[in-house]
Amino acid sequence: MSGVFITFEGIDGSGKSTQARRLADTLRARGRDVVLTREPGGAPGAEDIRALLVEGAPGRWSAQAELLLFTAARRDHLERTIAPALARGAVVICDRFADSTRVYQGLRGPLRGAADRLHAEFIGVEPARTFVLDLDPADAAARGLARGAAQDRFEAMGLAFQTRLAAGFRALAAEFPDRVRLVPADGPEDAVAARIDALAAEVLP
Amino acid sequence: MSGVFITFEGIDGSGKSTQARRLADTLRARGRDVVLTREPGGAPGAEDIRALLVEGAPGRWSAQAELLLFTAARRDHLERTIAPALARGAVVICDRFADSTRVYQGLRGPLRGAADRLHAEFIGVEPARTFVLDLDPADAAARGLARGAAQDRFEAMGLAFQTRLAAGFRALAAEFPDRVRLVPADGPEDAVAARIDALAAEVLP
Ligand SMILES: Nc1ncnc2c1ncn2[C@@H]1O[C@H](COP(=O)(O)OP(=O)(O)OP(=O)(O)O)[C@@H](O)[C@H]1O
Ligand SMILES: Nc1ncnc2c1ncn2[C@@H]1O[C@H](COP(=O)(O)OP(=O)(O)OP(=O)(O)O)[C@@H](O)[C@H]1O
Ligand SMILES: [Mg+2]
Ligand SMILES: [Mg+2]
Repeated sequence: MSGVFITFEGIDGSGKSTQARRLADTLRARGRDVVLTREPGGAPGAEDIRALLVEGAPGRWSAQAELLLFTAARRDHLERTIAPALARGAVVICDRFADSTRVYQGLRGPLRGAADRLHAEFIGVEPARTFVLDLDPADAAARGLARGAAQDRFEAMGLAFQTRLAAGFRALAAEFPDRVRLVPADGPEDAVAARIDALAAEVLP
Repeated sequence: MSGVFITFEGIDGSGKSTQARRLADTLRARGRDVVLTREPGGAPGAEDIRALLVEGAPGRWSAQAELLLFTAARRDHLERTIAPALARGAVVICDRFADSTRVYQGLRGPLRGAADRLHAEFIGVEPARTFVLDLDPADAAARGLARGAAQDRFEAMGLAFQTRLAAGFRALAAEFPDRVRLVPADGPEDAVAARIDALAAEVLP
């Protein structure tokens, strides 16, 4: 795979989608072939699985069934979208990937061990670089007030849970120091984007 | 789990649904609490996953994505339908279960090893008794001519593939001699049902 795989991670409302889009725009403006994608989803089959995961009542799936569905969606996304794009040399920028499963399903269950075994068996691929957007959950909630969806999720899951997630993402950065960069995400959008652009240069040929 | 878990397996059109229903009717007529269910499906979430598996183009999912979806559906079915019924002491009769995955996904991929690891991690439960309906694929195809769906599948997958499946189910019976009974399925429906009723008595209190 001759392309470069970059992922964005972090708690709800930390700015992942915003910064993934900004990096994609910046690299495209410089003439690069960029595929901007997201999880769960990112391919037709994976988007159908996403619908099962995000629709319906909160208790619709057990932690175990949910982990299997996330992994099925990721496998499909990898086969249909990520791997072909990397094979042709593109930069693939993905809004959430396996680290979200490590952190969320690691807390739900806890299923970190099962998630690691599924990843080793069915996914295997790791990003060249992962940006964890590090933001205080209270700040993320304040931003979310401007929107609908993130606010709903904060209220559903609670600030205490978002605080555990934030700690989980920080622990991942410590666990994978070569791959993961913790990026302070409390500054203005332009400043965060400039920092990420500089860090991305390390993995771009 | 104080109930009794019985499954039916075999190639397409071998008579699984017919004999599962007959055994359920027979045991209910004797006053037993029976839950008749099927895979993929058997619970609301699992039925939604079933729709993803059976609808759409044949190449919609890779063998790996398909295996993960079957396991997610089975986990949901186990949690929502099978385990609660067994816990209250019911006889649970299921039309296809993990042996179908061992045989089908064992040929597709081949993913028998991966299927076994997923089963150990996410399912764990084995039936008290499994009836493999053993029928020559040509005979099954001839029966199927009377219907729509099985005939479509035979034509899609081919007689050669059904022959490999039939061999796979026979090999499972040899692999799990304590659990699996190979039942000749070429006789009249009543004769097959009588044989299964007699064999089921071995595991019914
Ligand atoms: N640096 C920033 N300063 C202030 N607001 C920001 C900043 N970056 C993003 N936002 C705003 O915060 C909100 C959340 O951003 P965004 O949707 O990018 O986060 P996210 O991590 O993708 O969230 P989710 O987990 O819900 O998908 C949006 O309204 C966005 O416009
Ligand atoms: N013993 C039998 N003799 C003749 N025909 C039979 C017998 N048992 C079942 N059939 C007929 O064969 C066809 C297939 O049976 P059935 O649907 O029970 O098989 P199945 O194994 O559940 O198939 P599928 O894999 O397609 O679900 C049906 O039309 C059924 O009525
Ligand atoms: Mg987002
Ligand atoms: Mg049937």
